Amino acid sequence: MPTPLADTPTPPTPMETIAKERLNPPFDLRRMTYAMGDGEKEVKLREKHMMEIQRNPLFRLDDIHDLTKDQLRERTMAKFSTMVSYVSNERIDEFQKRMNVVSLADPGFWTRFVILGAIRSGATANQMSYWMSKGLLGLNGMVGCFGMTELAHGSNVAGLETTATFDEQTDEFVIHTPSVSATKWWIGGAAHSATHCSVFAQLIVKGQVYGTKTFIVPLREPKTYQLLPGVAIGDIGKKMGRDGIDNGWIQFTNVRIPRAYMLMKHTQVTRDGEVREPPLAQLTYGALLQGRTAMVADAANVAKKALTIAIRYAAVRRQFKVGENKLESQLLDYPIHQRRLLPLLSQAVAMGFTSYRMTALFEEMSGQLESLGSDSDEAETKEVLEKLKETHATSAGLKAFCTWNALETIEKCRASLGGHGYSAYSGLPGMYADQAVQCTWEGDNTILTLQSGRSLVSSYADAVKGQKLPGGTAYLNGLPGVLTASCPSDEATLDLKTLEAGWDTVSANVVRQAYEKFEGAMKSGKGREEALELCSQERFVAARVHTAGYMFRMFHEALVELAKDEPKDNGVIKTLDDICRLYGCWAIEENAAQFLKYKFFTPKQMDIISNEVTSLCAELRKCAVLLTDSFGFTDHIINSPFGRYDGNVYESYYNQVKAANPHNPVAPYFERVIRPLIEREPLELGDDADSMELDDEIAEIQAEREEEKGEAETADEAEKELKKPAEE
Amino acid sequence: MPTPLADTPTPPTPMETIAKERLNPPFDLRRMTYAMGDGEKEVKLREKHMMEIQRNPLFRLDDIHDLTKDQLRERTMAKFSTMVSYVSNERIDEFQKRMNVVSLADPGFWTRFVILGAIRSGATANQMSYWMSKGLLGLNGMVGCFGMTELAHGSNVAGLETTATFDEQTDEFVIHTPSVSATKWWIGGAAHSATHCSVFAQLIVKGQVYGTKTFIVPLREPKTYQLLPGVAIGDIGKKMGRDGIDNGWIQFTNVRIPRAYMLMKHTQVTRDGEVREPPLAQLTYGALLQGRTAMVADAANVAKKALTIAIRYAAVRRQFKVGENKLESQLLDYPIHQRRLLPLLSQAVAMGFTSYRMTALFEEMSGQLESLGSDSDEAETKEVLEKLKETHATSAGLKAFCTWNALETIEKCRASLGGHGYSAYSGLPGMYADQAVQCTWEGDNTILTLQSGRSLVSSYADAVKGQKLPGGTAYLNGLPGVLTASCPSDEATLDLKTLEAGWDTVSANVVRQAYEKFEGAMKSGKGREEALELCSQERFVAARVHTAGYMFRMFHEALVELAKDEPKDNGVIKTLDDICRLYGCWAIEENAAQFLKYKFFTPKQMDIISNEVTSLCAELRKCAVLLTDSFGFTDHIINSPFGRYDGNVYESYYNQVKAANPHNPVAPYFERVIRPLIEREPLELGDDADSMELDDEIAEIQAEREEEKGEAETADEAEKELKKPAEE
Repeated sequence: MPTPLADTPTPPTPMETIAKERLNPPFDLRRMTYAMGDGEKEVKLREKHMMEIQRNPLFRLDDIHDLTKDQLRERTMAKFSTMVSYVSNERIDEFQKRMNVVSLADPGFWTRFVILGAIRSGATANQMSYWMSKGLLGLNGMVGCFGMTELAHGSNVAGLETTATFDEQTDEFVIHTPSVSATKWWIGGAAHSATHCSVFAQLIVKGQVYGTKTFIVPLREPKTYQLLPGVAIGDIGKKMGRDGIDNGWIQFTNVRIPRAYMLMKHTQVTRDGEVREPPLAQLTYGALLQGRTAMVADAANVAKKALTIAIRYAAVRRQFKVGENKLESQLLDYPIHQRRLLPLLSQAVAMGFTSYRMTALFEEMSGQLESLGSDSDEAETKEVLEKLKETHATSAGLKAFCTWNALETIEKCRASLGGHGYSAYSGLPGMYADQAVQCTWEGDNTILTLQSGRSLVSSYADAVKGQKLPGGTAYLNGLPGVLTASCPSDEATLDLKTLEAGWDTVSANVVRQAYEKFEGAMKSGKGREEALELCSQERFVAARVHTAGYMFRMFHEALVELAKDEPKDNGVIKTLDDICRLYGCWAIEENAAQFLKYKFFTPKQMDIISNEVTSLCAELRKCAVLLTDSFGFTDHIINSPFGRYDGNVYESYYNQVKAANPHNPVAPYFERVIRPLIEREPLELGDDADSMELDDEIAEIQAEREEEKGEAETADEAEKELKKPAEE
Repeated sequence: MPTPLADTPTPPTPMETIAKERLNPPFDLRRMTYAMGDGEKEVKLREKHMMEIQRNPLFRLDDIHDLTKDQLRERTMAKFSTMVSYVSNERIDEFQKRMNVVSLADPGFWTRFVILGAIRSGATANQMSYWMSKGLLGLNGMVGCFGMTELAHGSNVAGLETTATFDEQTDEFVIHTPSVSATKWWIGGAAHSATHCSVFAQLIVKGQVYGTKTFIVPLREPKTYQLLPGVAIGDIGKKMGRDGIDNGWIQFTNVRIPRAYMLMKHTQVTRDGEVREPPLAQLTYGALLQGRTAMVADAANVAKKALTIAIRYAAVRRQFKVGENKLESQLLDYPIHQRRLLPLLSQAVAMGFTSYRMTALFEEMSGQLESLGSDSDEAETKEVLEKLKETHATSAGLKAFCTWNALETIEKCRASLGGHGYSAYSGLPGMYADQAVQCTWEGDNTILTLQSGRSLVSSYADAVKGQKLPGGTAYLNGLPGVLTASCPSDEATLDLKTLEAGWDTVSANVVRQAYEKFEGAMKSGKGREEALELCSQERFVAARVHTAGYMFRMFHEALVELAKDEPKDNGVIKTLDDICRLYGCWAIEENAAQFLKYKFFTPKQMDIISNEVTSLCAELRKCAVLLTDSFGFTDHIINSPFGRYDGNVYESYYNQVKAANPHNPVAPYFERVIRPLIEREPLELGDDADSMELDDEIAEIQAEREEEKGEAETADEAEKELKKPAEE
């Protein structure tokens, strides 16, 4: 049925629509911002850093989608130069926080400083001052790069092929790449900008291989940047993302360095070739751990940034009229759209609170680790190592699942923008491409998950023996009762305490399942390593469930802490309580199979959980835009017309597209390919060939032959089919 | 402990390693290739097409990662030109198959021909001949583009804002873009290469709005490509992927076209402004349906291509020594790696068989649809429409989940390559970026899933009324018994028939849950539309489970069919049976919550299912490389050094990177940004400022003031913190 043109209603503008979302806030926005951002002090510091980069013209972001790889690299290097004065003059923890903000704007950035951590963790005090004096920190006369990965080896650092052979005669190491597959690969900064590399290589002394150690190897002459003798370097070229960093490959051909260029905090090689190894090799993993910790915080921030874009757009975009409505509905009003975004928001918030608590824990531990020396006593060393073990396992699972969660969140946010998520200018494709590598480097996520699962199996064995477990695995202290606990009643289903008990029970069961499969394999005579491989799927599931439960507990604990100081009437705790319950319920729904299998919840209670997820989504929808405000990102950091604070989505997107793609209606390749196509004469083979009357002639010849031969050979079926005349 | 250098074993080369994978094949490879590829005839046709594009120099693929957007567009246009003779001279179904192969090599391609489908489905016979004579098919004098989406409207085609107002005086339509948000957006080919656009616009006649119809609007003068009056066009610019297509935006300002340029197969407008509407509007959706069908087939192929890369690489890559092994293990030997890839392989094969069966069904239906005319009788029309309804719902769910599956498969394959998956040259980042849009266009996946769920709710209502259901929803004919069926015994758990019964029971239950929530909302007085929104999460789950079960049934049916003709002793059926069972079991594991909730399987039986997944992965690992061979892609199509047939992964990757990034050790931006950084004097503010002895002076002044004032004001806490001297 036609409708009169005059009846068409005019919808409010996007800006009017989003402004309405901010009326009657159910919480004190500034207090919520502090809660979300780890407190007033941290939030103000972040705001200071955001302002500083926003006003720095090198941190222009709106044009990055159309820069070439070379242009991106040049700009990254220029930005890097402006950061150098901070690294020299700022406290390391403040600089780290500054870098977290910079990473949100330009995620390629941080890798520039990786070598610093490597040298800090591996150098003796004298070596550290030496390299500092050479310009390691200030980048005067020296730009470093981190040379671990090879073409054929990444995760298995112990299997690296590059060799560092000690030459006793000259007191030098000979650094050598024995084959193409041993080529150093992915080395960030190697292609064009580094002068020195911290090379991971097999230490060989007097015909004995001592495993992988680190050596500082000069690559280029620092004045002219010409390659030094024996050093071959190339450009890795185009990557999925992070094209601002000039990753390169390096081959060493018998390159000689002084013995003192080996980092000797842990293993030492003396002048006459004596090798002194540290009591415990894992001490060198400190630097890796630090990287993982930062990645959990990054994951939370990246997820919040993506959600800010998706939620603000969903508030503004209208699509379909529902029922009798005259106006099309906001996307955010659709229950399915709430379901797509708000559980992810609760997860991002959970990751944030988890990262604040873990960062503190890890910093404490790093301090203890660094103060360990050769003079530390056994008890002290053992305590630190126990802690290292637990921290290592926890950080492994958190790094893996948080970086995966962030990647998935970006993709779901991107898809929630519909077609516009496919525009580079939405910012989300670039965020995805930049985030993806976080799931691989600093420990491949699958390998880390299995490590975490291995540690859980070992904790279970300890618990069975009656050992009391600390921290994140404390739920195993409740064995065996915890295994068979269940939700006390339908009414109690949604209590945060019930949810926490549910996570305890289900986590204990999945860990038990991995442990029993492992024990079964051992009893059937398998070696330890093989037995672990045989329960790898169970270890994976155990780590997944354990980590989700761990994050829920962290969030819940943070909430209890916050509630102590937060005024009761400002709505902050009430809303965070909803978000925490949403995270808990949704994560249970996502792991529903385990909760049903171990009978913590009945099917009916699982329906209560699912309905609660839907209800909480509807409740939080009311303040969803305000929650994105509480994440506290500037429009500059968001860098997407779809995530603008003011909601002016279409005009700013349209203007950005126009600015980035100046008017040029006729393609540069018009004369070369379009004109020849459109003006060509149609190719019609043998238009006049019918006049040959060939078929009659053939028929005659054929008739003659058949008389002679009896039966003709048939051609291939497909060939015949292909030669049928076109029907259209 | 050090190890003697002499003991280091030399592993076999990658080529030797992969060659070993092909020894003792458990099936006849050629017969398996035919089975996987929909039969000998189709496989040979595909091989012919692959050879033709491989030898076409314009289809060079190894350099695409480093081409700029303009270069990609030029090459795409040049390739497009070489395809034009096929579209004119080949049967449409063969041409479609050719395009499927071309799409695998260059996924941006197909959109060029979308307009053809639109005109075919909307034009009268006379209109069709007219546009053919203008060069629509042969692209002589005319290049078309498809103009549906607008900046603020995509999925809701009925809400498009562009207007086509009939001017009775001149017998013309006036095409007009009323606002920025009504700008035609994403129009493939509009930026530079199209001369005409099929514009979707609101038909307005005599002040009445008749909804969205299609109009052919000339954009450019075909000789000079200058824009016609009233037409403004711009370039959409950088996208996530598919940069070979010049998507553009178009604004029309009172552009006049003859009345005959409206496509009038369905709705007609007469000379005096009478509007004749068709009895049923959904007939115009035929063209969309065709697109979806092809996308299911594409999804299967894309997933197989990604898996070929990941599996061949996993056979070659070695990582970690397990237990006493002297050599590092192949990735493919790790149970967790088998678990990562082989269920996805089974899913890709399931999607392939599903697509073969559905393509046949859809082609049959399209024929019937096209033969429907104004003279068709009511019964005939009704039958076709019933079928259309079912096909629409089935295709909606399949399009959504198969394109999602393919996207997820690419990403998981990419991640399984570790760091190398982040290299553009691995091919997988590009595949991901190209595939992503498949989940949005031709019907956003979430919306399609909900459509499918809506149809399932309606089928359930029909079944409750006793109506017999055809095809994919036939399991609902078993109501109510099917709802409470369960696995007869632990021993029967793994029978394909049990799995199928399980899918029936669980599908019926999830559909029931959506139906009951819908009915509940209706009974509580909600309107139909709102009630549907309130059960959208349940509809979503219903469609997900239903579609997975549907694919399992399709695969199982195809297997039964194949077994009739296939020789028993060549191993093909045995292996396909394993793959089918793996798909069935794994998909059950993925939906374990539902199978437990509805008690088809006990927790113990779910463990049997999970263990079977692990066992089948180990079994299929033995022939995994041969299975990738059976997918039958040439190295040219694979276009990834990591997926090479010969396994020569590292050398060819290294050579490709070198070729694509010629030696240039000093960056082009060296003088501009690197030298100023590395040679700068360190910035140390006020090195000699200490000599001012300012602090003593301040202390004096301060002491004086405090005497006066009693107490000083304290500055902000954060400010003080920031001004602390740097400690490092």
